[in-house]
Amino acid sequence: MTDLRPRIRVLRGSAIALGPGKVDLLDAIEETGTLGGAAQRLGMSYMRAWKLVQAMNACFREPLVETSRGGTGHGHASLTETGRAVRDLYRRMEAESRQAMDPAWRELQGYLAE
Amino acid sequence: MTDLRPRIRVLRGSAIALGPGKVDLLDAIEETGTLGGAAQRLGMSYMRAWKLVQAMNACFREPLVETSRGGTGHGHASLTETGRAVRDLYRRMEAESRQAMDPAWRELQGYLAE
Repeated sequence: MTDLRPRIRVLRGSAIALGPGKVDLLDAIEETGTLGGAAQRLGMSYMRAWKLVQAMNACFREPLVETSRGGTGHGHASLTETGRAVRDLYRRMEAESRQAMDPAWRELQGYLAE
Repeated sequence: MTDLRPRIRVLRGSAIALGPGKVDLLDAIEETGTLGGAAQRLGMSYMRAWKLVQAMNACFREPLVETSRGGTGHGHASLTETGRAVRDLYRRMEAESRQAMDPAWRELQGYLAE
């Protein structure tokens, strides 16, 4: 059983602005609508999810995630327009990378042991 | 200063058959002609380089690296034909992946903070 696992990291200075885990978190925030729900879905603590969001937001011109701390929207989290655009670009990079590698990957698989 | 760091891993079952470190080791073996020289160039111990070579060789139908333990070729290490073919395919995957990602990557850079 062979598999290809490409992992793309976007660095800003020494900080990882985006990587597989952070982008999965963006997806989970969009799907669950809360930071707590997203954290639970990914099996991480609320605090870790919150820190990842702060780290991402700090790397971009505009925040990727908006959170409401009080009022009727308390606990709500959602992707901003920038957040959706950045997530989509990352997923596009993944898909285009995988497609471009496919011919060489098929050839390489022929060399792997059964 | 932003950077894109794609890392490709080839998995066979749960073993990493090839990844960035292993392929750098193949290059260093080709360039230095010995396992010790390759290890030194990459700042790793001889034992670690030896283990990485054993792990790679075990994942493929034919060994990627040949080593001579005695006689006039003592200490010599070189890539087999399979080793060169596999290394070249991996580097081709890296290059094609990077090229395919480039348009989305340029677009994504516009969203990163200065």
